[in-house]
Amino acid sequence: MLAEIKGLNEECGVFAVWGHKEAAQIAYYGLHSLQHRGQEGAGIAVTDGDALSIHKGLGLVTEAFKEGEIDQLHGHAAIGHVRYATAGGGGLVNCQPLLFRSHTGSESLAVAHNGNLVNANEVKHQLESQGSIFQSTSDTEVLAHLIKRSVYPNLEDKFKNALSMLKGAYAFTVLTEDKLLIAQDPQGMRPLSIGRLGEAYVVASETCAFDVIGAEYVREVQPGEIVTIDDEGIRSILFSNASQRALCSMEYIYLSRPDSNLDQINVHSARKQLGKQLAKEAPVEADIVTGVPESSISAAIGYAEQAGIPYELGLIKNRYVGRTFIKPSQELREQGVKMKLSAVRGVVEGKRVVMVDDSIVRGTTSRRIVRLLKDAGALEVHVRISSPPITHPCFYGIDTSTKEELIAATHSIEEMREQMGADSLTFLSTDGMLEGINHGGKDSACGRCMACFTGEYPTEIYQDTLHPHDKAVKS
Amino acid sequence: MLAEIKGLNEECGVFAVWGHKEAAQIAYYGLHSLQHRGQEGAGIAVTDGDALSIHKGLGLVTEAFKEGEIDQLHGHAAIGHVRYATAGGGGLVNCQPLLFRSHTGSESLAVAHNGNLVNANEVKHQLESQGSIFQSTSDTEVLAHLIKRSVYPNLEDKFKNALSMLKGAYAFTVLTEDKLLIAQDPQGMRPLSIGRLGEAYVVASETCAFDVIGAEYVREVQPGEIVTIDDEGIRSILFSNASQRALCSMEYIYLSRPDSNLDQINVHSARKQLGKQLAKEAPVEADIVTGVPESSISAAIGYAEQAGIPYELGLIKNRYVGRTFIKPSQELREQGVKMKLSAVRGVVEGKRVVMVDDSIVRGTTSRRIVRLLKDAGALEVHVRISSPPITHPCFYGIDTSTKEELIAATHSIEEMREQMGADSLTFLSTDGMLEGINHGGKDSACGRCMACFTGEYPTEIYQDTLHPHDKAVKS
Amino acid sequence: MLAEIKGLNEECGVFAVWGHKEAAQIAYYGLHSLQHRGQEGAGIAVTDGDALSIHKGLGLVTEAFKEGEIDQLHGHAAIGHVRYATAGGGGLVNCQPLLFRSHTGSESLAVAHNGNLVNANEVKHQLESQGSIFQSTSDTEVLAHLIKRSVYPNLEDKFKNALSMLKGAYAFTVLTEDKLLIAQDPQGMRPLSIGRLGEAYVVASETCAFDVIGAEYVREVQPGEIVTIDDEGIRSILFSNASQRALCSMEYIYLSRPDSNLDQINVHSARKQLGKQLAKEAPVEADIVTGVPESSISAAIGYAEQAGIPYELGLIKNRYVGRTFIKPSQELREQGVKMKLSAVRGVVEGKRVVMVDDSIVRGTTSRRIVRLLKDAGALEVHVRISSPPITHPCFYGIDTSTKEELIAATHSIEEMREQMGADSLTFLSTDGMLEGINHGGKDSACGRCMACFTGEYPTEIYQDTLHPHDKAVKS
Amino acid sequence: MLAEIKGLNEECGVFAVWGHKEAAQIAYYGLHSLQHRGQEGAGIAVTDGDALSIHKGLGLVTEAFKEGEIDQLHGHAAIGHVRYATAGGGGLVNCQPLLFRSHTGSESLAVAHNGNLVNANEVKHQLESQGSIFQSTSDTEVLAHLIKRSVYPNLEDKFKNALSMLKGAYAFTVLTEDKLLIAQDPQGMRPLSIGRLGEAYVVASETCAFDVIGAEYVREVQPGEIVTIDDEGIRSILFSNASQRALCSMEYIYLSRPDSNLDQINVHSARKQLGKQLAKEAPVEADIVTGVPESSISAAIGYAEQAGIPYELGLIKNRYVGRTFIKPSQELREQGVKMKLSAVRGVVEGKRVVMVDDSIVRGTTSRRIVRLLKDAGALEVHVRISSPPITHPCFYGIDTSTKEELIAATHSIEEMREQMGADSLTFLSTDGMLEGINHGGKDSACGRCMACFTGEYPTEIYQDTLHPHDKAVKS
Repeated sequence: MLAEIKGLNEECGVFAVWGHKEAAQIAYYGLHSLQHRGQEGAGIAVTDGDALSIHKGLGLVTEAFKEGEIDQLHGHAAIGHVRYATAGGGGLVNCQPLLFRSHTGSESLAVAHNGNLVNANEVKHQLESQGSIFQSTSDTEVLAHLIKRSVYPNLEDKFKNALSMLKGAYAFTVLTEDKLLIAQDPQGMRPLSIGRLGEAYVVASETCAFDVIGAEYVREVQPGEIVTIDDEGIRSILFSNASQRALCSMEYIYLSRPDSNLDQINVHSARKQLGKQLAKEAPVEADIVTGVPESSISAAIGYAEQAGIPYELGLIKNRYVGRTFIKPSQELREQGVKMKLSAVRGVVEGKRVVMVDDSIVRGTTSRRIVRLLKDAGALEVHVRISSPPITHPCFYGIDTSTKEELIAATHSIEEMREQMGADSLTFLSTDGMLEGINHGGKDSACGRCMACFTGEYPTEIYQDTLHPHDKAVKS
Repeated sequence: MLAEIKGLNEECGVFAVWGHKEAAQIAYYGLHSLQHRGQEGAGIAVTDGDALSIHKGLGLVTEAFKEGEIDQLHGHAAIGHVRYATAGGGGLVNCQPLLFRSHTGSESLAVAHNGNLVNANEVKHQLESQGSIFQSTSDTEVLAHLIKRSVYPNLEDKFKNALSMLKGAYAFTVLTEDKLLIAQDPQGMRPLSIGRLGEAYVVASETCAFDVIGAEYVREVQPGEIVTIDDEGIRSILFSNASQRALCSMEYIYLSRPDSNLDQINVHSARKQLGKQLAKEAPVEADIVTGVPESSISAAIGYAEQAGIPYELGLIKNRYVGRTFIKPSQELREQGVKMKLSAVRGVVEGKRVVMVDDSIVRGTTSRRIVRLLKDAGALEVHVRISSPPITHPCFYGIDTSTKEELIAATHSIEEMREQMGADSLTFLSTDGMLEGINHGGKDSACGRCMACFTGEYPTEIYQDTLHPHDKAVKS
Repeated sequence: MLAEIKGLNEECGVFAVWGHKEAAQIAYYGLHSLQHRGQEGAGIAVTDGDALSIHKGLGLVTEAFKEGEIDQLHGHAAIGHVRYATAGGGGLVNCQPLLFRSHTGSESLAVAHNGNLVNANEVKHQLESQGSIFQSTSDTEVLAHLIKRSVYPNLEDKFKNALSMLKGAYAFTVLTEDKLLIAQDPQGMRPLSIGRLGEAYVVASETCAFDVIGAEYVREVQPGEIVTIDDEGIRSILFSNASQRALCSMEYIYLSRPDSNLDQINVHSARKQLGKQLAKEAPVEADIVTGVPESSISAAIGYAEQAGIPYELGLIKNRYVGRTFIKPSQELREQGVKMKLSAVRGVVEGKRVVMVDDSIVRGTTSRRIVRLLKDAGALEVHVRISSPPITHPCFYGIDTSTKEELIAATHSIEEMREQMGADSLTFLSTDGMLEGINHGGKDSACGRCMACFTGEYPTEIYQDTLHPHDKAVKS
Repeated sequence: MLAEIKGLNEECGVFAVWGHKEAAQIAYYGLHSLQHRGQEGAGIAVTDGDALSIHKGLGLVTEAFKEGEIDQLHGHAAIGHVRYATAGGGGLVNCQPLLFRSHTGSESLAVAHNGNLVNANEVKHQLESQGSIFQSTSDTEVLAHLIKRSVYPNLEDKFKNALSMLKGAYAFTVLTEDKLLIAQDPQGMRPLSIGRLGEAYVVASETCAFDVIGAEYVREVQPGEIVTIDDEGIRSILFSNASQRALCSMEYIYLSRPDSNLDQINVHSARKQLGKQLAKEAPVEADIVTGVPESSISAAIGYAEQAGIPYELGLIKNRYVGRTFIKPSQELREQGVKMKLSAVRGVVEGKRVVMVDDSIVRGTTSRRIVRLLKDAGALEVHVRISSPPITHPCFYGIDTSTKEELIAATHSIEEMREQMGADSLTFLSTDGMLEGINHGGKDSACGRCMACFTGEYPTEIYQDTLHPHDKAVKS
């Protein structure tokens, strides 16, 4: 399904590099490959050993950094961030990395973060009562305050101390003049991997960033692990008795790039397995299988292969749709002007179609696509979803809707089928999903967070988290 | 293969509408769906019955037209154009439509054109000797001069007279204050279809434009046909004893959008047939089939289906690559930084891969992709091309390279295979190509131009055409 | 008075250079100094001996040419143009130079023009009836057609022949691969001077362009003179029995830059003389003299000096007002928000003020400024205009209003005074104006065009000229 | 002298409004009139009673705020800021107002500031040791931290408490959800005035902002005064036993707009008096007087009037010079290409010229201008400076150079004269300067800061202040 339609979006991607003389450039290309995780803004902070420099900008990585701006970021280490536009937020002030300067200029701190803290408001309240002031609405600022206020003498201990007060899902990267620190939450909910590029170390939200820069994958950052990289090399501590990993299953289903590996499981392969599993659970007599571009293509291929039905390009996405697009008038929309997605009449006309999609959030897009297919002459449209119904909101950094907006939370499957005008509708089972994801993997013992399907959240949830926008300051 | 790498590109797309009160908006969305045919510039001319207005701009349709600029184009009829950047040319002066004004303001002429005239220089020479002056380097200006100088009293006759002096491939749209004229060359080399949108008529280079605006397909413009649309309706004449149609086969293989129909043959389906045919002609033992995104996906699906080998996403294109991209330094490129295309290690590692591509021009891209796959761990790479070797340049509007640059014109297939480091390399036969294209069609009697594969050009070729850039004025 | 308020604007400036290896750069700086003559667009065409290149853009010179774009214009000779936005016109298509290409690429023609032809429509009519077609609405295109159609064998003769058919005011610059031609109309209505920059020749609408590039003034182009510059040097012919020169007097009064010399008379000095003359003709008892910035400053200084009254900055212009300015709402305007011009309360409060302005077109601005001064506490405001009442429209390239809009054409001076709320109002006499302009000059025998004050037009006027906008094609 | 050349620049301007339903628009126009005080960035924060909103941008006010962006700032009160680009600093992060959010969203704080704190680093050090972290390098952030950490229960007391810890020159504006606070340092070094606009209150760095929006001047903010404006009206306290006022004399000489009044003395009038005083102290036999545009025009008029020598426009500034300007190559510069300032040959040729300038910092510009005049034919150039020699750096918010760069700190007047190639050079005496400034005023008892001329700083100076850039973090 299309990210811009769905309201189901990753909230960020992080990248870090240590020990490369063109650190900022490496970060630029790394972030570029993580662009699907956030398009609102991008930033890179570097250190040359003496001082931190930073550049941030709105828009895509290629828009935030103009020719020449990368060259002004000198240094051998960098952290970078791509940001997804959350409701209400926005503007450069919330773009990351955030840079906190000390008046001496030698103990500055840059922080970039992917995830969501569930007790951020509680901690902010406490910090404010002690005199701290906040300039952004992001969780990231909380971490910096906790580090600065920690009484421990060295940075790793301060960091460990700060993390011990935070609950939720996170992948943190922290850069000082002479150190790179990275950390993952105790449940390991957000992906974060370590790689090598010659002598340099690289860290990224997804392994596709390693391929793009020619780096080799080394390992995942472990749940509850702090990794420190500096001139003396790399070292690691665990700051929490790690529970079993609960990596976000939506990363496999929808969010990550198909060429990334998560816990050493290739995302495309996992999706294809989900599609095969779906074909086993929910077969149907049909002429063609088609996937909703781009994220459902792999599952559709798997469904087709398992079912022995030809896989076809029944839906096509216009790759030139961008933000500067002039919207059609209401009248033209009613006449049928549509810009983002087309059904391929020559393919679907007169056919019984299996339409594979990865997930359903509000259900409006599915309705629109079923109609596109029927208008193009499809005889029957059988909707197959390669994940279970989403019935609970996510508090760990995925921008799903509120519970009231989640169609599967308030409707039966038959009601949903009727609403979308499909001839049949089936979701993958939760067991089928786990089977599908782990089938392709070398390490099938890894747990997954399935909270949005089951309501079983891997951490406690705070009152403030449940109504996160009530107190949001306009910005 | 990637358009931007290959040097094999469509030179334009045209769109026209008559009888719709939001003609300019309709043209905007129509052109947007033809964006793949040209990204250098876009323009729309409209008439409100009294006068012509025009707006043109550089870049994508969404860049050439900013919010509000469409609204200033009032009228019930419009023609539009997307332009591909040809070598050396460029700038707004060559963007179309071209508008020719009369001093009275009531016999103006706007012209938009897709194709290439092979006797343009001969005709220009003649016109200049009679006092005509030219402001652009485009063929389009020649047509306007011929029309204006024609002694016939009415516009259709002037147009017919003008066309009778021109040789080559063309799809012309001409707009005056009160008439829309369209014409196709006697061989019907470039695609051009007519549709209906309620009471309005629409004309487009590809039928995908009809789907986007909700119009219905009516028919193809015939080879050697002039169609006139005005307040009295639609009428048609043939200005040439049409020979058998010779529609460009590269439109099926590579250029058109998969959701378009050409001569009522769906492009995706034709490509899939080409892939199937290729699997029949050139089978190989392998583990997976992958296509070079985006144009070779359909052929790869067909190959996989026919061969019974799983189809996988072994290659992935970064969809955020744009023009403002900062190029990696030579050093980083050598380290392996690559931005446009990635091989999916998790898919291809340890596999024997069939890599399907639609065509080979210079061969450099194929070499790069074979290397990507091998670097990602592919055991074997078998390259399968879903068209015959390109051995001759095109003079009809496709920007292929000169003969010297066409690798298949100067190398044997074995030499090519060795150069690109593939384990095997096979091209589709010309018979197989015809069989593949026509298999999906209702009207398999249609001829195809295969000049770039065979050297059999459907029209005579002029000396000036053979060396078209020798005399190009810098602009 | 402020150009943007007044509706009295120059329609262009031209610049040319021959024999300098950085011709395009020289043209860029020359045009920059002529920026006050036109802000809508700018362009430069160059020749490297073999071919012409061109770049044009909308906006100021600094906007039309971005870093690097100048460097792509290689050649030793260039012509350039800054364009003023005339009503209805606009867009890049009317920006100059216009480039006319020959199909051989070796007899191309670039033309840039300042002025207005009064028989342009008559000639266009004739040319169209012979098969010519026009792409712009500018007069410049007419010249190119006439040159191309001329039967004479060499370019100078063609040019001479073409000019013999044109009536009106003009300063033409024409560039071919190997020649630079310049010409002035037989009455010499628009300014055009020749200078030297080392071995190179330069030509400009105003001599301030010479100062900026470090060139030396040589002489004026004579009325009815064609000057040819090429590798063989400079030569000149007269194509008309020149009548007495009738240089536009408004160039002295308002249009030219104060540091320019026209017919060797410095513009600032002439304006100061006009102010002195005005003080002699229309003395008044007052405390301070102030000028309306920026064009009336010199006249105000002269008035003050002659009258022995202190000259003060009673009015100040906000130098940051630009085109991207957000306009105040009607409500805020009524509350007194004003952005462009402020009265200096600390200077005018409690004072009897002589407010010197250079001219009055519609009278609305004068009314506004008188009110500004009174609101700031001026006891009396005596308006003194350093030119006679404008009672007739200009057909020679100055964008004055139509006769109906010219307040002095329809009102007595007493009515005007009352309308603007001034305590007194006096205009300079025509004799006083001539005396003022020529007083500073070495060559007081030069005639001046005073048509807008007297209705005595130096050329015949055509019917089409009198109603020039009736037939304008929208663009 | 030209701001961009001189290295003597104001570091900011502030504006505030309370009680106007279009507060953001009013702030926009107010800031626009303060644009000369800072061109690097601009920002506006508003409150609607419930929450603060903010928009900031780089560049001029008209660039930082695009059409529509003002409309999104709803509220009845606003503070705004224009920022001057200080060395090294920069980027949006240092643009003001700074917004500090509380997690509850109801005790947020926006701060905008003009001036410079001399103990900022000392206070930062203390705050950091208590756990505060800083995101910008601006002094403004220090104030916010002190307010938040203050133990007093109400905002005014917190503010007063915070100010008591700060030393230096400042004009602060602070906005919360329901209050506007403004304050001036105990010496009153930076200008700050209060006005009324109907029922609304306005505050601005200069009174020209009042004229532009149609507001009436009420009074100056007093040294050491805090003014609070909220729904209950306006009230004031003194937080310091105010010493005699020490308003920056450079505001009169160079920085403020000529139409502003400072301590009820009009700036233009003060400058004219400085010029008259200079003519008394340093007469010379000459033919014309000219001023260096734009800031020295008033002084030149005064000099001319006193001396009885004609005032002329001997130098002219190109008003189209902007930031996007393409710099001439070294070779062209040597040939004499100059873009910003021209000498008017027709005015100065053969004349003995008095060139009045307001001040000399490094002396390089003066040398260039003397040469311009001599190259244009001036027989003699007598430089007269309407202020004393600048011998000491400013620590209160004016961007002068370091002591080593101040030419008058290291050279005798005769050495300076020789370096700049002038025939004579005289500075105004300090007594003459005081006499000149106060001559025009109603309240001549006001003291002035003359530290840059005398080294007598009105406050203590800290070690960190003396070397302010040593520890600057790159940003």
